[in-house]
Amino acid sequence: MTRGRFIALEGGEGAGKSTQARLLAEALRRQGHEVLLTREPGGTPGAEAIRSLLLHPPGEGWKVEAEALLFAAARADHVARAIRPALEAGHWVICDRFLDSSRAYQGGGGGMADADLLALHRIGSGALLPDLALLLEAPEEAVAARIARRDGDELDAIGGRDAGYHQHVAQAFRRFAEDEPARFVRIDASGTPEATHEAIMRALAPLLGHER
Amino acid sequence: MTRGRFIALEGGEGAGKSTQARLLAEALRRQGHEVLLTREPGGTPGAEAIRSLLLHPPGEGWKVEAEALLFAAARADHVARAIRPALEAGHWVICDRFLDSSRAYQGGGGGMADADLLALHRIGSGALLPDLALLLEAPEEAVAARIARRDGDELDAIGGRDAGYHQHVAQAFRRFAEDEPARFVRIDASGTPEATHEAIMRALAPLLGHER
Repeated sequence: MTRGRFIALEGGEGAGKSTQARLLAEALRRQGHEVLLTREPGGTPGAEAIRSLLLHPPGEGWKVEAEALLFAAARADHVARAIRPALEAGHWVICDRFLDSSRAYQGGGGGMADADLLALHRIGSGALLPDLALLLEAPEEAVAARIARRDGDELDAIGGRDAGYHQHVAQAFRRFAEDEPARFVRIDASGTPEATHEAIMRALAPLLGHER
Repeated sequence: MTRGRFIALEGGEGAGKSTQARLLAEALRRQGHEVLLTREPGGTPGAEAIRSLLLHPPGEGWKVEAEALLFAAARADHVARAIRPALEAGHWVICDRFLDSSRAYQGGGGGMADADLLALHRIGSGALLPDLALLLEAPEEAVAARIARRDGDELDAIGGRDAGYHQHVAQAFRRFAEDEPARFVRIDASGTPEATHEAIMRALAPLLGHER
């Protein structure tokens, strides 16, 4: 049995990652693949409990170092209990956010050193990387409109930070994609969900072992 | 104003750390010092919330890597929000467990590399170390008797591990004390609480700036 493929959807708030993760999982299942559709922070009972501490912090809110350690702890549980077992069983794993979100948010947005965030990932999760990170990019106005349609639950301690923070996050994601072109694919997410899904399926064609 | 002194009480379960931390804080206050008496994991609202995840884990329990990251996250919050401000205000900080417990439990007991645990502490808490770590040591039988008198709340996911685990923890503490004699003082905690308290006050005399 071959190891499954691991695909992460990355990008800022409101780029359509959750919708695209679902559409991708459905398309892969129609092609006969076993798929674990999951998200970060979360994906296991332990990691979901940490998620709730991250998005609704007790006390004064987390400083960036504690926040990065909590994300790394949630990811360690998620990788050990859900992602690695699925990959070893030959399943595809589709994950809404993964390591690169920590690098973009706590690094690009929060000012932590990228080397430190990579060290946390090595210590916590054996440095597991997705086979491919799909970076969903949409113009700022489109994102603002999508976020305005969300309900209260998603306006959390991180998504609710100021525009300057989110610009740094977006810049960091672009820099990662430029620095590691083999591991990132930039996806134009400015159009309809269907158009974005088509772009994702084209990007995955090499991993699916056939041309579309 | 001079920076305050930072004293950690370390050792395995049932060595009397909490009692001695309280007695020490009281003695220092009687001498006119401002004292923050605190504990790990915990000491701030954020860190107490993490404590509850650590001692009563959701799901299947934490693997050692996630556990170490959660301890480091709790410590980062505790250091940033409580310990550093107190030290900067010139207060003494008396802490029931600190970094060396992570090194002994997740390292000695759980098998993680000491260098990784130190890296988490550098990233999370700027590598802050106590001025002195008091290692409370008591014979196994005395410890077993003290633990048997505890109520359910303290029989948690970590304290409740098997004897082999706790022997590795005790060995690790002894090794730290041998490796860093300037930072550790081994305290015989086999006698009465009063005798142990006297031994602690003798060990602290140099920091208190007078002979007893």
